[in-house]
Amino acid sequence: MSFSALTSVDTLQDALDPVSALVDDCKIRLNEDGLSIRAVDHANVGMVDMHLAKSAFESYEADGGVIGVNLDRFEDVLSMGDSGDLVSLDLNDQTRKLDIHISGLSYTLALIDPDSIRQEPDIPELELPARLVLTGDDIDYGITAADLVSDHISLRADETAEEFHIEAQGDTDDVDLTFTNDDLLAGSVDEAAESLFSLDYLKDMSRAMDTDAAVSLLLGSEMPVKLRYSRHNGFVKVVYMLAPRIQSE
Amino acid sequence: MSFSALTSVDTLQDALDPVSALVDDCKIRLNEDGLSIRAVDHANVGMVDMHLAKSAFESYEADGGVIGVNLDRFEDVLSMGDSGDLVSLDLNDQTRKLDIHISGLSYTLALIDPDSIRQEPDIPELELPARLVLTGDDIDYGITAADLVSDHISLRADETAEEFHIEAQGDTDDVDLTFTNDDLLAGSVDEAAESLFSLDYLKDMSRAMDTDAAVSLLLGSEMPVKLRYSRHNGFVKVVYMLAPRIQSE
Amino acid sequence: MSFSALTSVDTLQDALDPVSALVDDCKIRLNEDGLSIRAVDHANVGMVDMHLAKSAFESYEADGGVIGVNLDRFEDVLSMGDSGDLVSLDLNDQTRKLDIHISGLSYTLALIDPDSIRQEPDIPELELPARLVLTGDDIDYGITAADLVSDHISLRADETAEEFHIEAQGDTDDVDLTFTNDDLLAGSVDEAAESLFSLDYLKDMSRAMDTDAAVSLLLGSEMPVKLRYSRHNGFVKVVYMLAPRIQSE
Repeated sequence: MSFSALTSVDTLQDALDPVSALVDDCKIRLNEDGLSIRAVDHANVGMVDMHLAKSAFESYEADGGVIGVNLDRFEDVLSMGDSGDLVSLDLNDQTRKLDIHISGLSYTLALIDPDSIRQEPDIPELELPARLVLTGDDIDYGITAADLVSDHISLRADETAEEFHIEAQGDTDDVDLTFTNDDLLAGSVDEAAESLFSLDYLKDMSRAMDTDAAVSLLLGSEMPVKLRYSRHNGFVKVVYMLAPRIQSE
Repeated sequence: MSFSALTSVDTLQDALDPVSALVDDCKIRLNEDGLSIRAVDHANVGMVDMHLAKSAFESYEADGGVIGVNLDRFEDVLSMGDSGDLVSLDLNDQTRKLDIHISGLSYTLALIDPDSIRQEPDIPELELPARLVLTGDDIDYGITAADLVSDHISLRADETAEEFHIEAQGDTDDVDLTFTNDDLLAGSVDEAAESLFSLDYLKDMSRAMDTDAAVSLLLGSEMPVKLRYSRHNGFVKVVYMLAPRIQSE
Repeated sequence: MSFSALTSVDTLQDALDPVSALVDDCKIRLNEDGLSIRAVDHANVGMVDMHLAKSAFESYEADGGVIGVNLDRFEDVLSMGDSGDLVSLDLNDQTRKLDIHISGLSYTLALIDPDSIRQEPDIPELELPARLVLTGDDIDYGITAADLVSDHISLRADETAEEFHIEAQGDTDDVDLTFTNDDLLAGSVDEAAESLFSLDYLKDMSRAMDTDAAVSLLLGSEMPVKLRYSRHNGFVKVVYMLAPRIQSE
């Protein structure tokens, strides 16, 4: 297995943040066309699929191996650099360590046995009848509003009025944030859709969304929601999937 | 009972902050000339009397009713808006809820039975022989200095020298902050006055004073102190009253 | 014993910070040529020797006495002033208190019996074969990097290559920050030197170093390290000494 790559600190940060929002350890696939990570949280509720394109690197050589990485430690090293600083990654296949260099700093990151890490999930193809495009900022605002009254959040697309609602019902107070067609970047609703989700997962996911990102939200009725966006000028592609909570009557 | 009003987010924040510094729940009187709140803290030590003028609203309709409100939740909703954003308040008399709208956000605030809230205090008229006018910043500075050595603070107006002192005696160290006539915005002292107060209450009260506010401080000897100021271009008028501590010999 | 002095708030802060980084109480020698403090931490691991020159004062009168001071309380008073504000210090020999004035604020600081404070250490003269000059920022960066993996830090000067290394070995990961001759402000290495130190002490010491300070680092093999720098335009001179940890094999 061989891997050697050179890129800027913020490229790696923008690629890893969406994953570390959900899991501590992950497998990184060192593919010929770039780095890929698929991971599911320990409760099997949230999944992430991230791809960082080879073209985001100054130099990149990989032969399809898989390494196991603790994301906290990896991101700690990256935080030692400024965002534009160059960082080199070199896999030492014998010691099973990743040599990371940022200017005068050398960091030897011990890898984790990939077999000891949760299996990569299959992100299922789903027929989801509503597709809405919002900014990362919109999603963050809706989460903050819902968080005032509850730890659950309802996402609801209205077929006729073509409105999208982020709603939450608390013990005493209720919140309803309404997006009309004009408020959305885009939207197409084949049939009305509504599902309930855990707020904590959405909070974690939204933290890794840029405020001006165009986030595609794919919604069904009592179905998982998919959130898709790209960042770092399109070099990083992220898909989140979140399982629904059962609606209480 | 009917109530419907439209104003900016910061108008309501500037009106409610001085009250929430002292109590969690309060009665709001929906008078024809504006909103009025009188409240006393659970230990009967600090009182507040706040009036927000009808003229601070874009539109305002009220018929003299009284509602009970949890200020934390009310202020949390307001924090979802930017300071200049318009916020509408509509009382639903049937559900006993207040509908709050800020742009696309609807929040339904459950009201509290006014009879379950501490009775509104009468703020007594008192003959207080010393009247000094300081900035909110001066008061904050004096509190910070006193806090270095004690959890009590002495306010003292000196008749002859026309000086005002903020003092504190600690176990080992002492603090004396002196304001001469030149340091004060105004001052008239009919007779020497000195009283001791709990620092915690004054800290809470000073947090809701703008740094450049002209605060009238009315002082007697072992008497309550009154603090009066206006904010939001005079639309909000605040009176605090704080009971003295017994001077230890 | 008499002492009376006038200077700016930041002069005293810049002089006391390097000492309070290590100890809570200290003796201050009120010498004719300025203030001197020598102190050692309670574990006898870190020492500091600080001198603030008389020429840093607007006025200065002292006759060689010694006072005991709690640095937290002294620095709390100073924090009440802005950095350029004038602060006057006047020793009241009868009450054993220091009168501190900043504008309208009077603070009476109770002194501590100097005999109750740890004895001042002798900072030994040591033959240390490596002398390297780095910026405060370099040292801070090396400490932050080492802190990622360990609570110990190794400082190593390489005789032949004239390189300086800040290294740390963690349970799984290692860090090596390399300074070549070009990275250093200056350096002369008579023989290779390497010692291991507790990271916590270096963290505390580095907090009181200005980022652009030129810090002389004097290093031996399993010997104490000395760190020397000046601040406040050279009016404040600081020497730190830190005992080594035994290298584990």
